[in-house]
Amino acid sequence: MSDAPLRAVVALGGNAISPPGGSGSAEEMRASLRTTSECLAGLVERGVGLVISHGNGPQVGRILLQQEYAAEHVPPMPMDVCGAESQGQVGYLLVQAIDSALRRRGLSTRALCLLTQVIVNGRDPAFRRPTKPVGPSYPRPDAQRIAHETGHVFKIMPDKKWRRVVPSPKPLRFVEEAPLLQVIEAGHVVVAAGGGGVPVVEHRKELRGVEAVVDKDLTAARLATLVHADLLLILTAVERVQVGYGTSQARPLTRLAVDEARSLLAAGEFPEGSMGPKIEACIDFVSAGGPRAVIASLPAAEEAVFGTAGTTIVATDG
Amino acid sequence: MSDAPLRAVVALGGNAISPPGGSGSAEEMRASLRTTSECLAGLVERGVGLVISHGNGPQVGRILLQQEYAAEHVPPMPMDVCGAESQGQVGYLLVQAIDSALRRRGLSTRALCLLTQVIVNGRDPAFRRPTKPVGPSYPRPDAQRIAHETGHVFKIMPDKKWRRVVPSPKPLRFVEEAPLLQVIEAGHVVVAAGGGGVPVVEHRKELRGVEAVVDKDLTAARLATLVHADLLLILTAVERVQVGYGTSQARPLTRLAVDEARSLLAAGEFPEGSMGPKIEACIDFVSAGGPRAVIASLPAAEEAVFGTAGTTIVATDG
Repeated sequence: MSDAPLRAVVALGGNAISPPGGSGSAEEMRASLRTTSECLAGLVERGVGLVISHGNGPQVGRILLQQEYAAEHVPPMPMDVCGAESQGQVGYLLVQAIDSALRRRGLSTRALCLLTQVIVNGRDPAFRRPTKPVGPSYPRPDAQRIAHETGHVFKIMPDKKWRRVVPSPKPLRFVEEAPLLQVIEAGHVVVAAGGGGVPVVEHRKELRGVEAVVDKDLTAARLATLVHADLLLILTAVERVQVGYGTSQARPLTRLAVDEARSLLAAGEFPEGSMGPKIEACIDFVSAGGPRAVIASLPAAEEAVFGTAGTTIVATDG
Repeated sequence: MSDAPLRAVVALGGNAISPPGGSGSAEEMRASLRTTSECLAGLVERGVGLVISHGNGPQVGRILLQQEYAAEHVPPMPMDVCGAESQGQVGYLLVQAIDSALRRRGLSTRALCLLTQVIVNGRDPAFRRPTKPVGPSYPRPDAQRIAHETGHVFKIMPDKKWRRVVPSPKPLRFVEEAPLLQVIEAGHVVVAAGGGGVPVVEHRKELRGVEAVVDKDLTAARLATLVHADLLLILTAVERVQVGYGTSQARPLTRLAVDEARSLLAAGEFPEGSMGPKIEACIDFVSAGGPRAVIASLPAAEEAVFGTAGTTIVATDG
């Protein structure tokens, strides 16, 4: 069997890093990452060059919670610094798990994590409309008190609790573009732009971190365009994207032209907080010339790359 | 003026990252790192290729403290993961500060941070004798209770309070050796092996993080040897190493042959927790063929590289 060498940018969802609803301990993360890394090493074994981005929602949430409990004793760090900490935390555990999986298969490829900053536009309209929930849930009075003390913005969630929301501006490009390309060209498995990358704005030619969270799938799409990936692979908890999700007409999608995807997205077929940004990321990559984007479940990763698993988005459904 | 191109590995002490005795806030760190980065950018302007390692004692101490205050709600991470978080935290702020300093000078060189694991020997005798204090100080009863609950080892400090101590094994080599060399060769300012690197042992060919702290100066010496640095530059709070430190016979040293350094170290001239490991790191680098190692103060960095500031250690004092 001969597989053509492929380059894939993989976006790992939260379920690939730790079990949903778990305690978030290092043991739990190591167990999840071991399974995830077996899937990824399987791709490396079949000749796929991997660039891996990952979510950090639960991890940065726990860092924010720790900061809050210790706030009287240790000054809390702003969101950008917490994001960088979570890149260190998840990146380290992920690199170690991937290296181990590669070694178990007798492969000589090794993994590394490059701390990544993503440049956003300081005038992105997202800064006027914070939408991305971060950190713990609060009853209303606590949220009001914290909002008063810190200036943070809170919104009510579907469960009637309140959470802090931060802006989610669009990723434009990477500060570490040149070294990213170098380590990827060298053939390493590269973990980068975890949690969507640390968002920074250019201010009088200097860089400044901002209190925001960039969507990790949109960042992965930017990364895939930058490195001329053959494939953007968004791994999540579901096997395929559905239309009519949650209704009796629910129907899984196997293949979509980018125009169809755009129409369905505009028609509100995909929820804003979950499948919406994933579809948007696929549209972004394919519109920029990317050959194909696939949304699939983690265990189906290999089948998604070499077979027909998941939902594939291409330029034209020819 | 023509300066020959030099490659230097710089080890930054705690005072370069945040003011001693400060609160440890992000603002404080940014202010210290701005000053530090001006010195570093001055070296880049004079053609010095920089690889930068840094301490993380106060930063990882604060992360441990945050973990402890939140321990009933968020499972604390082990030391190796905390070390990785601190590499993310300090690495991000340092890269941003260096980039800004380079941009202010109109230089096109840019900085990046590569998350670094350092391999130690699982049979290093340090594992049987933990010496490195980490995290907060406790009165004796609290230390005893925590020791009982966690199995952590505590020791009494000169201030009569108790602190957790962890092993400080010798750094052997880096997991990320190949990519480190690639990004350094490419001419970037590379921040690596922060806090001495995350210590890992090879166990049945797999890597496993260990609850230990590798001395950051010894790691910087390994890094300097790996990258064939012209210079190991250890920046700290004092202008020169002294013999007879704290006595009326105190005398600053300007230049030492490696054999003299070894004799003075063996004679107990340098305190174990502070100057000792710095001298040991210089000996390590010069013994492995490194041309020279300098211990100097941060503001004297440029003079230390191109002039005569600090204490220089060379193979023979010819």
